[in-house]
Amino acid sequence: MQKRTDLAMEVRESFPRDNVEVKGVILTKEHFEKGELDVTTVNIKDEKGSTAMGKPRGVYVTVESPLLTVEDEDHGPIIDKIAENVESICDGLTDKSVLVVGLGNREVTSDSLGPKVTESLFVTRHIDREFGTAFMKENELGLVSAIAPGVMGQTGMEAIEIIQGLVDQTTPELVVVIDALAARSLSRLCTTVQITDTGISPGSGVGNHRKELSKTSLGVPVIAIGVPTVVDANTIVSDHLESVLTKQGYNENEIGSFLKEVMGQEMENVFVTPKNIDESVHVISQDLSKVLNKLMHKK
Amino acid sequence: MQKRTDLAMEVRESFPRDNVEVKGVILTKEHFEKGELDVTTVNIKDEKGSTAMGKPRGVYVTVESPLLTVEDEDHGPIIDKIAENVESICDGLTDKSVLVVGLGNREVTSDSLGPKVTESLFVTRHIDREFGTAFMKENELGLVSAIAPGVMGQTGMEAIEIIQGLVDQTTPELVVVIDALAARSLSRLCTTVQITDTGISPGSGVGNHRKELSKTSLGVPVIAIGVPTVVDANTIVSDHLESVLTKQGYNENEIGSFLKEVMGQEMENVFVTPKNIDESVHVISQDLSKVLNKLMHKK
Amino acid sequence: MQKRTDLAMEVRESFPRDNVEVKGVILTKEHFEKGELDVTTVNIKDEKGSTAMGKPRGVYVTVESPLLTVEDEDHGPIIDKIAENVESICDGLTDKSVLVVGLGNREVTSDSLGPKVTESLFVTRHIDREFGTAFMKENELGLVSAIAPGVMGQTGMEAIEIIQGLVDQTTPELVVVIDALAARSLSRLCTTVQITDTGISPGSGVGNHRKELSKTSLGVPVIAIGVPTVVDANTIVSDHLESVLTKQGYNENEIGSFLKEVMGQEMENVFVTPKNIDESVHVISQDLSKVLNKLMHKK
Amino acid sequence: MQKRTDLAMEVRESFPRDNVEVKGVILTKEHFEKGELDVTTVNIKDEKGSTAMGKPRGVYVTVESPLLTVEDEDHGPIIDKIAENVESICDGLTDKSVLVVGLGNREVTSDSLGPKVTESLFVTRHIDREFGTAFMKENELGLVSAIAPGVMGQTGMEAIEIIQGLVDQTTPELVVVIDALAARSLSRLCTTVQITDTGISPGSGVGNHRKELSKTSLGVPVIAIGVPTVVDANTIVSDHLESVLTKQGYNENEIGSFLKEVMGQEMENVFVTPKNIDESVHVISQDLSKVLNKLMHKK
Repeated sequence: MQKRTDLAMEVRESFPRDNVEVKGVILTKEHFEKGELDVTTVNIKDEKGSTAMGKPRGVYVTVESPLLTVEDEDHGPIIDKIAENVESICDGLTDKSVLVVGLGNREVTSDSLGPKVTESLFVTRHIDREFGTAFMKENELGLVSAIAPGVMGQTGMEAIEIIQGLVDQTTPELVVVIDALAARSLSRLCTTVQITDTGISPGSGVGNHRKELSKTSLGVPVIAIGVPTVVDANTIVSDHLESVLTKQGYNENEIGSFLKEVMGQEMENVFVTPKNIDESVHVISQDLSKVLNKLMHKK
Repeated sequence: MQKRTDLAMEVRESFPRDNVEVKGVILTKEHFEKGELDVTTVNIKDEKGSTAMGKPRGVYVTVESPLLTVEDEDHGPIIDKIAENVESICDGLTDKSVLVVGLGNREVTSDSLGPKVTESLFVTRHIDREFGTAFMKENELGLVSAIAPGVMGQTGMEAIEIIQGLVDQTTPELVVVIDALAARSLSRLCTTVQITDTGISPGSGVGNHRKELSKTSLGVPVIAIGVPTVVDANTIVSDHLESVLTKQGYNENEIGSFLKEVMGQEMENVFVTPKNIDESVHVISQDLSKVLNKLMHKK
Repeated sequence: MQKRTDLAMEVRESFPRDNVEVKGVILTKEHFEKGELDVTTVNIKDEKGSTAMGKPRGVYVTVESPLLTVEDEDHGPIIDKIAENVESICDGLTDKSVLVVGLGNREVTSDSLGPKVTESLFVTRHIDREFGTAFMKENELGLVSAIAPGVMGQTGMEAIEIIQGLVDQTTPELVVVIDALAARSLSRLCTTVQITDTGISPGSGVGNHRKELSKTSLGVPVIAIGVPTVVDANTIVSDHLESVLTKQGYNENEIGSFLKEVMGQEMENVFVTPKNIDESVHVISQDLSKVLNKLMHKK
Repeated sequence: MQKRTDLAMEVRESFPRDNVEVKGVILTKEHFEKGELDVTTVNIKDEKGSTAMGKPRGVYVTVESPLLTVEDEDHGPIIDKIAENVESICDGLTDKSVLVVGLGNREVTSDSLGPKVTESLFVTRHIDREFGTAFMKENELGLVSAIAPGVMGQTGMEAIEIIQGLVDQTTPELVVVIDALAARSLSRLCTTVQITDTGISPGSGVGNHRKELSKTSLGVPVIAIGVPTVVDANTIVSDHLESVLTKQGYNENEIGSFLKEVMGQEMENVFVTPKNIDESVHVISQDLSKVLNKLMHKK
């Protein structure tokens, strides 16, 4: 029974008790803005932790706020907190040449976050090549390139093939990947930003970008910034059932065989997403573009 | 427990046995193209039928084909069958002045069917006003106007208010409304076209166009053409549970109270949709534009 | 020889000398932000002025800044100046129920300003209808509805027909029309915002919205906010020629007959637009949305 | 005085007489469909011809039809003629693995041809990798990948860098580049398709993709398919003037110095495009997708 989530934080929550340490995994939580802005860090320190969590070793920071998706609110504190964590996980963005990759399908609203973020980036690599380093310094411009390559059904190519080609040709010092993620819980949709130094692992996102995008595969550090916009339909149904059956006193085995019966193939390739997904993706992509423009260009 | 579907055919299926008549409702089925193209007609004849079905009196024709969403296939037979049924339910489209309304939110892929259909229509009302009736006859052009007004969250107005205004100002003889629908079963998504002479009833579609669009409210006949693109998340979960619990021998009451426990508020305002919804909506909207262009302009 | 411009300011400039008064027309100029933000007011007081200018009586305020199209710059002063002039020309926007109409074709970049502005508006009329006046007051929300109806080639209907229908159905106290305009001079493109209380007159814009939209035709006050994004190709060529031939000593008649020879029909239905029109329209539409949201909702 | 055109045919026309041979350049013309479909071939055979023409050596086929942009007409003969010439210039498309590159800016209507063509391609490379060669043969599928990378202002990278990376990673046997072109004459806009085996040379298109895309630079054959959608504003003005002044008896030098006076810097970075460019680009991109799908997949 696959209970899919791209959020390390949700994997950690699936362990029975919050206060018991999972070996090799360090969990820290901080609360800001009167509890309306939470930062959770899951640090997977070693192979034991990686196996337990089913995620690569590395740091996963989750910035969470119910206000993230509300256009009217002041997004200043959220943007600052995301920026602070991106900066720290990159060990400094500002002096590096950066390739930003917006993964996902711009034609599917819930998968269009990556393309939308790249659309609003201030891209400068060509300016540096035309006007030179002195001009860039004077104007406090970082060296930024960007692409939204589309998904495999549109290109016939794996994201890793496209990005490897770009890395070889343009030699950025850092790759930042933006992608829509799948969460396990509906309440996380569009309220959560995960920042990680592990890149993107197989099977992530709606678009099914299958090969890993990481420092190991690409040869340069890869930071991934993701926002859950969908829940797998199988996951939502089985989670619901499990919680009720547990309450009714069934044991794990009984629940397992019940679920096997319920869950059908027909729910593969479908997902759950909120009605107002267009507005949420719009608001959050604007925020993420601001975070990156600010960090990369010192303005 | 609301099990939402906009398809009259699915409501009819929810009655225990296919061969038992629901009073006031006539059901007919036809099969074409070696079983790859089915036409089901639900005719709600009177108030008794209307109450039993929870749908207004009128004719609901469903054209169903697994090939509808497959771009490569020859769509000729499907297009012809849809056209034939639209023509018959309108009692002839060709000599009427028609206002086509594409309901839905163009920014949300699963709700963008209506706007996409109007985009590819051959609109001619302004040509008639500039070049006159003789020109239109000579070129075998019907009198067509179209609009995709957007959803209430974008306009602040009910669809009925916008369309009533247009009907008053431009006096079409027929209004054709195109909309994305909610089905109960995943297998119906993007494989089914429902054509009805009842217009659109409250609560239909994803976009929540709340007031009825019908001959009664608008004063001119209203034909609705709809394609299910989403399933309500609550519906899918409760349908799954119900079917399993029934197999396990629980009775209706037991199932009912179990469902009350499982189903939470958090699943309101979320829906289930297929991953390749962008391609499906593209293909089907092309087909529906062809159907309408063909019928309205005799070409 | 049609020298088309939708800017009253450019019509005024076509009169030989700036300091000589055109009868019935009052011209005032103000400079702000060290000359980087200019406000020009053309007030056409009577029929004589109207005939001389070829524009309806009324006030035309032009806010001009080379920074309008530059994304990086601080747009605060520009936004404030536009807001100040919109507010004053409306005699107060805040307590009125407003229908905002985004004219133009969203599929043609240079004509997409109107639809883009409405996309980012905070629309509230449906909230008032659901939650009532007290809720609106408490949250300092104005009563706003909006539509981007598309151009006549897409709808078959005149803008006036669509808007008249909406005004009848929803009875706003004020209509604000947003549209892309044609300028005479390339330097005005995307650097200029014209605000007027005369509505939109025939032939304006790229989209050829032909019937006048004004208080006279609609029965409610109409404010138009426009930004020039194109120059008519005939206009640019003949302007160029005229200026050179004048320098060479030719007289008006000679120039006139020369132009008649040069200017061909083939340049009808083509227009001139800048290469970076996508970015400019994006930046300016964001500004105009901010202006309207701020004025209409007191935030 | 730069008179820019991307059409070899228009360069050839600029030579005084059609029937006099330009050395190293062979011109052939054919007429089909009662003169409504013309094919012009310019074959630049050697360096002398290349210098005279200011274009690389190679074959430039132009398929021209006034019906190309008319949606209602039967496009069968045009599609067949384009396909026939693409096939012959590629020396057979069907058995090759092909990377199709849609150049241009999808946000600017007149520059969106390339992205729009790739959107409707049937891309299959990932299917081959998943299901194997036997499956591809059985279904008569060619090996196709595609990308629309965006323009330099969006990516910070040259088209050549992006494509070189893709060619290195995915080793296609042929690259097909689709791009919007600049013509010299308005009558060529959206009525002309140029097919060439020389790739794309510097300065072509609106998007200013600066480095050459050719067999020499990429190491695999490059076919370019282009459609003119804009005329450079300077070109249109100077062409107009030149033709009139020539009629008036001025000599080449006089005209030259007159033009120097007229033509200003302000017309750089602006272009001329038709009002209905959205429809034209839509129709032509559909045709080009059909041509490529048909040739690449034998269907």
